[in-house]
Amino acid sequence: MKQKRIGVVLSGCGVYDGAEIHEAVLTLFFLARSGAEAVVMAPDMTQHHVINHLTGEVMAESRNVLIESARIARGKIRDLARVGVDDLDGIILPGGFGAAKNLSSIAFDGPKARVDDSLAKLLRGMHAAGKPIGALCISPALLARVFHDRGITLTIGSDADTAGAIRAMGNAHQESGVEEIVVDAGNRVITSPAYMCAAGIAEVGLGIEKLVSRLLSLVGS
Amino acid sequence: MKQKRIGVVLSGCGVYDGAEIHEAVLTLFFLARSGAEAVVMAPDMTQHHVINHLTGEVMAESRNVLIESARIARGKIRDLARVGVDDLDGIILPGGFGAAKNLSSIAFDGPKARVDDSLAKLLRGMHAAGKPIGALCISPALLARVFHDRGITLTIGSDADTAGAIRAMGNAHQESGVEEIVVDAGNRVITSPAYMCAAGIAEVGLGIEKLVSRLLSLVGS
Repeated sequence: MKQKRIGVVLSGCGVYDGAEIHEAVLTLFFLARSGAEAVVMAPDMTQHHVINHLTGEVMAESRNVLIESARIARGKIRDLARVGVDDLDGIILPGGFGAAKNLSSIAFDGPKARVDDSLAKLLRGMHAAGKPIGALCISPALLARVFHDRGITLTIGSDADTAGAIRAMGNAHQESGVEEIVVDAGNRVITSPAYMCAAGIAEVGLGIEKLVSRLLSLVGS
Repeated sequence: MKQKRIGVVLSGCGVYDGAEIHEAVLTLFFLARSGAEAVVMAPDMTQHHVINHLTGEVMAESRNVLIESARIARGKIRDLARVGVDDLDGIILPGGFGAAKNLSSIAFDGPKARVDDSLAKLLRGMHAAGKPIGALCISPALLARVFHDRGITLTIGSDADTAGAIRAMGNAHQESGVEEIVVDAGNRVITSPAYMCAAGIAEVGLGIEKLVSRLLSLVGS
């Protein structure tokens, strides 16, 4: 059987200004353990800002999303703008503020957010091709913006403001716990709240393991 | 039963100039899944250098080991110099070049390497107290330097040069595969090669899972 190729979209390296590292690594771990190939990618763009993760303060630095994401990928990463629907059998977006500050402007503009053009095009292409899409943590809010005209069903856990924004964009929000996934079977979209629920890495791993397993079961089915 | 407190020593954030991110995150994951508390720490010092993980080239930047390590720890991290033997029931050193460039000078000075004073003191204290020590990837070479007068048995996989350096420091090297651990029962030291063997994240996870399990079984026994 041909190895399944699953895109993993990173947005930097660190929860406060990039991709949430635990979610990204556990996604790679469960994909590999299931025999799938991870196609790691990130946009070649400047980060919105750089946060000192020890103090929470903004640092007077500039970093590139693709270069910092390469840390999580051990250098094996592609420019998102050069990845096409034909390269992938499915795609997963881990969370972290990078999804809301770099890949999109969800953190600043809420329901009126912009989404990176290349990413929006790739996601719409995957959806049109019937290929499954997974999203963790805050990333379902990005999907909500991209697919506002489809009315998809998503979860970001139970945060009322974010759930409200998802509804305001024309979608349905379903509450869930950190260990759960929400499956929109018609749209082939699977989401799990991960660190959007206050939780530790063990619980976050349970949700990601389920999401990866379900996503792979939808490939080619 | 009291929760076991296991130190996890980071050396930055990224395989080429800091802590190997997959090894660090999987260590945290398996500790949490076993009900242990991770006490994450790193030294407050400037990194030896900053590597662009996309190209492998040195960047004209300066970064701090503790601040960058905080990305992996989601901000919950302590200054290594302020952690004592009494704070811990065991300790684990993930790998990455940061162990050989920041925590020590193994990458440059081989058997004559310096090791960060606070870390060497903490490791010798843990050993003297009979508390177990685990090390992954290149970090066993750092242990070899700290415990050169004890003649401990370690593995870094099968890399001949590094194995030779470990022997030159007065220790024994035992070859092993990525999924294996080597246990020096007398010294309560457990090592596993992780990414020192060419391997993917799934195989690396197998070795780390075994190392964490064995280390926890030695706590208080």
